[in-house]
Amino acid sequence: MAKFAKFCKDMGFIFQSSEIYGGINGFWDYGPLGVELKRNIKEAWWQDMVRNPPPGPDGQEIRMVGLDCAIIMNPKVWVASGHVGGFSDPMMDCKESKKRYRADQLMVVHASTAEFPIPRAGEPSDIAWAFPNGDEPAMKAAVKKLESYIKKHKIEANKVFKPLLSLGSPEVILAHVIGPDVDVPGTLTEPRAFNLMFESHAGPIASDENKVYLRPETAQGIFANYKNVLDSSRLKLPFGIAQVGKAFRNEINPRNFTFRSREFEQMEIEFFCHPDESMKWYQYWRDLRKKWYSTLGIQSGNLVPREQGKEELAHYSIGTTDIEYLFPFSDEPQELEGVAHRGNFDLSAHAKHSGKDLGYFDEEGWNALLQTRLEPFKDDKAKREEEKKKLEKEEKARFQFVPHVIEPSAGADRFTLAVLCEAYSEDSVPDAKGGTETRIVMRFHPRLAPIKAAIFPLVNKDGMDEAAKELYRELKPYFNVVYDQSGAIGRRYRRQDEAGTPFCITVDGDTMKDGTVTLRDRDTLKQERIPKGEVRARIEAALRAGT
Amino acid sequence: MAKFAKFCKDMGFIFQSSEIYGGINGFWDYGPLGVELKRNIKEAWWQDMVRNPPPGPDGQEIRMVGLDCAIIMNPKVWVASGHVGGFSDPMMDCKESKKRYRADQLMVVHASTAEFPIPRAGEPSDIAWAFPNGDEPAMKAAVKKLESYIKKHKIEANKVFKPLLSLGSPEVILAHVIGPDVDVPGTLTEPRAFNLMFESHAGPIASDENKVYLRPETAQGIFANYKNVLDSSRLKLPFGIAQVGKAFRNEINPRNFTFRSREFEQMEIEFFCHPDESMKWYQYWRDLRKKWYSTLGIQSGNLVPREQGKEELAHYSIGTTDIEYLFPFSDEPQELEGVAHRGNFDLSAHAKHSGKDLGYFDEEGWNALLQTRLEPFKDDKAKREEEKKKLEKEEKARFQFVPHVIEPSAGADRFTLAVLCEAYSEDSVPDAKGGTETRIVMRFHPRLAPIKAAIFPLVNKDGMDEAAKELYRELKPYFNVVYDQSGAIGRRYRRQDEAGTPFCITVDGDTMKDGTVTLRDRDTLKQERIPKGEVRARIEAALRAGT
Repeated sequence: MAKFAKFCKDMGFIFQSSEIYGGINGFWDYGPLGVELKRNIKEAWWQDMVRNPPPGPDGQEIRMVGLDCAIIMNPKVWVASGHVGGFSDPMMDCKESKKRYRADQLMVVHASTAEFPIPRAGEPSDIAWAFPNGDEPAMKAAVKKLESYIKKHKIEANKVFKPLLSLGSPEVILAHVIGPDVDVPGTLTEPRAFNLMFESHAGPIASDENKVYLRPETAQGIFANYKNVLDSSRLKLPFGIAQVGKAFRNEINPRNFTFRSREFEQMEIEFFCHPDESMKWYQYWRDLRKKWYSTLGIQSGNLVPREQGKEELAHYSIGTTDIEYLFPFSDEPQELEGVAHRGNFDLSAHAKHSGKDLGYFDEEGWNALLQTRLEPFKDDKAKREEEKKKLEKEEKARFQFVPHVIEPSAGADRFTLAVLCEAYSEDSVPDAKGGTETRIVMRFHPRLAPIKAAIFPLVNKDGMDEAAKELYRELKPYFNVVYDQSGAIGRRYRRQDEAGTPFCITVDGDTMKDGTVTLRDRDTLKQERIPKGEVRARIEAALRAGT
Repeated sequence: MAKFAKFCKDMGFIFQSSEIYGGINGFWDYGPLGVELKRNIKEAWWQDMVRNPPPGPDGQEIRMVGLDCAIIMNPKVWVASGHVGGFSDPMMDCKESKKRYRADQLMVVHASTAEFPIPRAGEPSDIAWAFPNGDEPAMKAAVKKLESYIKKHKIEANKVFKPLLSLGSPEVILAHVIGPDVDVPGTLTEPRAFNLMFESHAGPIASDENKVYLRPETAQGIFANYKNVLDSSRLKLPFGIAQVGKAFRNEINPRNFTFRSREFEQMEIEFFCHPDESMKWYQYWRDLRKKWYSTLGIQSGNLVPREQGKEELAHYSIGTTDIEYLFPFSDEPQELEGVAHRGNFDLSAHAKHSGKDLGYFDEEGWNALLQTRLEPFKDDKAKREEEKKKLEKEEKARFQFVPHVIEPSAGADRFTLAVLCEAYSEDSVPDAKGGTETRIVMRFHPRLAPIKAAIFPLVNKDGMDEAAKELYRELKPYFNVVYDQSGAIGRRYRRQDEAGTPFCITVDGDTMKDGTVTLRDRDTLKQERIPKGEVRARIEAALRAGT
């Protein structure tokens, strides 16, 4: 993965943020190629999900609108959502080193003797050395100290590695654990909750009253605006509200390149529907979202939908499917997107905390029922009133409800990383000397490719450069294209292969005679001559492929 | 402006953030129509400035690339840029009320007698009541107290309003000023600098070591990545790097709807060039940026470029032009964009603070010079070496330099607000009863309009609804279009006029016979029949208008 990160930097896909100042842990920047790739991904999502979603499960039109909320919201939003109370990691402090560790990632190594297979107070083997999981040097240091301990106490023992929290109740065990970076046991505190939200203050005074949070997800902005959207549009259920935007989580241990970073971008939908129809919509979105990734070139073998088990589900969730991708940094597939059936948890919570009515009244449905059921009594006013009252008592309630919500929540940076991993390949191609050479080629779907086509003059004379520039200027208003006139054609091909450009178009001597150009395909390496007037249509067709 | 904000809310353009929780001062959300409008604005900027900029001053291609940096960067970036030291407003605290005021916005009202036209210690008129400028109730309360003071002391006096800081040196005057919200003089402290950057902490410990800032501008991310962009692309000077993204300023007094908010989005370019060519590029960008706003429908009368006077310029700036717009909330035009000639201030500052070489070596230029000047000595090796040394001493320096930078820095939210203000109009149109009615119409440029076309069936029967839906589905992959089947056609037109939709297309009885539809123009109200197959081309032509 370090090698891949280096490639991404060298090509201008992804840079470490603030690299000239030594970087900053958990933050990344997108370079010239990366920003175009990520823009194309976000644009494809907006186009396919918001502006032009496919028909619903019964062939109906899907109603979707967008929203763009501020990153900093009234902090009451995060009280209502539960993030102020519960959005936290367990952390342990070391009283001696003053460092802080994530409790569920601390491992210990200790001695297991035949008699005392686990550490117990008062016995030679009751000391354990802690180290953060994955921190190779810290682990080696701990093991070394254990080994000298075994030698000194002349005990026959094996090394045993275990998660610290698995050893038992912290108050019993901690007196016998030597924390990382120290030499005596008993310096680690019990785990305490550390909130993952970034805090700041709005206004000139840094008081509790002015405390604000950077949103840890875009979803809550949608719930907070649900009523405004309903009032300002003329939407009827079911409908969805979509948002793309930055979110922040103060991860203790950002890792795996851009996969787990502290600042990231989400593409989220909240789809509001009648409770009775919610399972149907849950399945619709789960299937649609998985298919979307395939459409954009993720091979199905690397893409794994995984229905969460009951024990994994958030307490309010009726069902959640993680769409996972097999990244090269892990043997286990990792989450790209979660499609969650959240019931009415969020709207109910915000209704309770804001005191606003966030329910929905299906007026059309209710009026239709009234009309049908009162029809038989149309000539008897008294009977009609009686029947109406009965209906209001027995039937109206089912037209008044808090909508259920299906939430497909995708990570724009994670999908960008998956696209980069998926696209990367090396193959063997003929070189200029009649042999073969290895080329790196980024096999992006043309729709996502940062550059759609590169235009080359074969040589910079005989009008070829002018003709190539003219073609470049013709295509530029429609696609992100580049013009490259320097170096051998083979070298220019290689550069575009590494950038993932689907087409290279060369203007040569024949172009000047018959108006044709050579169109070279990145994947098949096939070169064909086509009239230059057909180039635009060829690129457009490739962009639509598979959709 | 309050009425206009209400219109924007009712239409779903802009909502107060977290409104159900009483809002939050200085933060705004974009609703369903607003998000499309702002997306179109950002997309137009990216397309016109990054992917397809017009030719340069000498007809040359303009080289532009994009970038997308993290909002949170290494804090050393903000030390180097000067924001940690100097990016601040003068604030005064009140020792009694514990409130904080922006010193340069505090006004005082005091009594001016014939003898003592300004307040002076020891005289009856030497007390002044302070109130924040623009705070009407606070001003009235201060005036009332002054009047009872005049009455009590039986002095003949006039009310005089002045900015507090104009009264003289704070330490002399503050003993005689009664702060807002208190009743005794002398409780205000001297003005102190308050930094406008939002602060937070990255990582689990909220220590000074972990302090980070939310970027107050996107520009510095470009400078911090300048070297990475140069190394990963094959760009030669001159070239530009562009970025769109959120920035944050902890304004003491957010005001004028979305114009001065605490969270906002910028569209910034840093254009790097040779120092000798910098004035040429300054003029190019200044003219191009002004023209861009006109192209997108801002009437030239409301658009004012204003060259900053020497006294306004930042100390490093060689010249800055503000492109201002006459908003309805002010008699003075207000800044939409600043085009600044920043010299080499930023790159030099980052080079100094990071210890990295951020200079540029014009290798091509230097090699060309060498070739020309050594040509006469090609047969005399010794002479050639001598000449080369001479050139290295006398000429090489001008090929090694820190580039100058032209920075066109535009506000996406400010331009969105300008577009909304500019588009809003009311006119008189024929109503259904043969009279006239007032209509609200948003005259957006079609390229910026949230919805490009609305498709109506005249009635929901005789196949018209199916034919209209079919047309809707045909257009949807290309444009953001809506389908509306409810209410009288006149009402449907009104709704689309208020949303700023350039075209309404009605499918009626004739459509079923001859395949034509009625295309109605938002601005001219003209209705014409065109074959339904031509609708797409008509919309496309309108999107290109003026570009």
